[in-house]
Amino acid sequence: MSNNQPVKRVNRQTWHFDQNVRLQSSAVAVGPKEGEGPLAHLFDKIHDDMYAGQQTWEDAERQLMEDAVNTLLQKAGITGKDVDIILAGDLLNQNITTNFTAEKLAMPLLGMYGACSTSMLTLANAAALVNAGYANRAIAACSSHNATAERQYRYPTEYGGQKPPSAQWTVTGAGAGLVGIGGNGPRITYATMGKVVDMGIKDPFDMGTAMAPAAASTIQTHFQDTGRSPETYDLIVTGDLAAVGYPILKELMLAEGYDMDQVYNDCGLMIYSPDQDVFAGGSGCASSAVVTYSYIIDQLNRGLLKNVLVCATGALLSPVSTQQGNSIPCIAHAVALEGGS
Amino acid sequence: MSNNQPVKRVNRQTWHFDQNVRLQSSAVAVGPKEGEGPLAHLFDKIHDDMYAGQQTWEDAERQLMEDAVNTLLQKAGITGKDVDIILAGDLLNQNITTNFTAEKLAMPLLGMYGACSTSMLTLANAAALVNAGYANRAIAACSSHNATAERQYRYPTEYGGQKPPSAQWTVTGAGAGLVGIGGNGPRITYATMGKVVDMGIKDPFDMGTAMAPAAASTIQTHFQDTGRSPETYDLIVTGDLAAVGYPILKELMLAEGYDMDQVYNDCGLMIYSPDQDVFAGGSGCASSAVVTYSYIIDQLNRGLLKNVLVCATGALLSPVSTQQGNSIPCIAHAVALEGGS
Repeated sequence: MSNNQPVKRVNRQTWHFDQNVRLQSSAVAVGPKEGEGPLAHLFDKIHDDMYAGQQTWEDAERQLMEDAVNTLLQKAGITGKDVDIILAGDLLNQNITTNFTAEKLAMPLLGMYGACSTSMLTLANAAALVNAGYANRAIAACSSHNATAERQYRYPTEYGGQKPPSAQWTVTGAGAGLVGIGGNGPRITYATMGKVVDMGIKDPFDMGTAMAPAAASTIQTHFQDTGRSPETYDLIVTGDLAAVGYPILKELMLAEGYDMDQVYNDCGLMIYSPDQDVFAGGSGCASSAVVTYSYIIDQLNRGLLKNVLVCATGALLSPVSTQQGNSIPCIAHAVALEGGS
Repeated sequence: MSNNQPVKRVNRQTWHFDQNVRLQSSAVAVGPKEGEGPLAHLFDKIHDDMYAGQQTWEDAERQLMEDAVNTLLQKAGITGKDVDIILAGDLLNQNITTNFTAEKLAMPLLGMYGACSTSMLTLANAAALVNAGYANRAIAACSSHNATAERQYRYPTEYGGQKPPSAQWTVTGAGAGLVGIGGNGPRITYATMGKVVDMGIKDPFDMGTAMAPAAASTIQTHFQDTGRSPETYDLIVTGDLAAVGYPILKELMLAEGYDMDQVYNDCGLMIYSPDQDVFAGGSGCASSAVVTYSYIIDQLNRGLLKNVLVCATGALLSPVSTQQGNSIPCIAHAVALEGGS
């Protein structure tokens, strides 16, 4: 055995970032519906059209991801050449939003896929690479678009297909975060990487029920690995459990002795107001990314929140897996952010 | 700025692994066609049926990935509980092979997508996490299956669609590697992470031409970042440029002053014999994974090869992006392996 053991930075499923890793800057770009929601004043760019000036919805989603990253660079006062690597993913088959955007950005790309957990999957890995000296600066980015998601996962929107109230509304947006050592912005302190959890739920129109157990698994593991508890945090958010999954998660956590009542919210419930006709609430990679990279960062930077845990939740199904009668495997990845100097 | 700067382990696009990171074990599982090829004697498991005992081809591909990982654990003399994390991806929409397999393995999952570059994308990141102390042991795995890929990317095989000679044959197989500090097995010394390269090629039946420039970009960057050259290596392989892309890569490298003639081969040309009716050669995540995790590791362990560079190449298109008239963006990630104590 080698004497040259690396510093141990992991405890079970949780990574520790000990090198003053910071979320130095962030930016979000969204579509019109999100621009009419309660957090609109915090979004960097709001498009008033689902096509974002493009010819297809897929090109529109690329425009959103490009907007988020370019705005991020501007806000940070750097150019693309100052960034070593981009970690990104989206909901589209073969991650095409990510691939085409990364080509334009001319940055090395690590393509990742965690469905709606991708925001924290990419952020955690960006933090790990920066902490370990594999990048001076890394960008974590992801996107989703209501129309591209409907086309691919369900039906073209022109079909006018009806949905049950447990269904969710894919957020049209992109979020990007810049990770580096030192500087301003919240510290990224821990990340808990999730296991795939499948409780046998089969209904693709009820993702909240399917994903809540994965969120519970990751958050409980996070507490056990770090010695933390709900009381450590001012805010714990899930990405998109929404109206159906939210109470289920609270119940699952309480059953293990964790009372989340004072601190728990869900990005899919935060991004839209109740009168916006979004069924159970927002979903998509952008649900957690847009709320985190605007509202949560803003609250941390202004000292209104001190400790936040963002647990992004993903349903790892595909139309083929559902058609073949499989249940819905889910995953959740959580990142701990700490405001202040 | 913080005084607490991490050790710098990156030079431009290349990561350096300085903690005696090893590919401690590897395993591959394949389908019948691969089992009739020139490397068959080195494969751990050969299925004599494309269904691998399952009801669907998608389930068969999961069986292959599961076989590769379980065989890997056996060969290494460990259980799943001894593994901290799995980094994996496949060609199927939403990475379903990976997701369902990771659920059965009960390991934390980092889902990655690089099309046919996924083998080295996952291996490089596994090495980075282990080198940095984020995992004691990490598995890198990927898969592809001829029938699942045909169904998704092209046409159901029953259709009997004709293909041009530039087309390639998706390898049915899965490969997995175990990464840890010390022990036996080749050292993982460097990894060069690629940028997306798009030279405007649009023909999805000619991936070799599309991907060769990405491979050239990554290999040239690798040489520049490390001060190495073709002469450093006994063997440099690309993942699946195959018969059309192979000569193009040699030419692109020669144009920059790098003569690859003595050392260059391609996994898509190595995995099948010329009489196996595979058009231009093998492709798919498994092309590079199966050849690397069997033949190349074997040659390194037996001292027949000393320095190998594996450059896995991926075409980042989707059926939708092609249908919408886009060209084919590509990427290549390279990992340097060194045999001996």
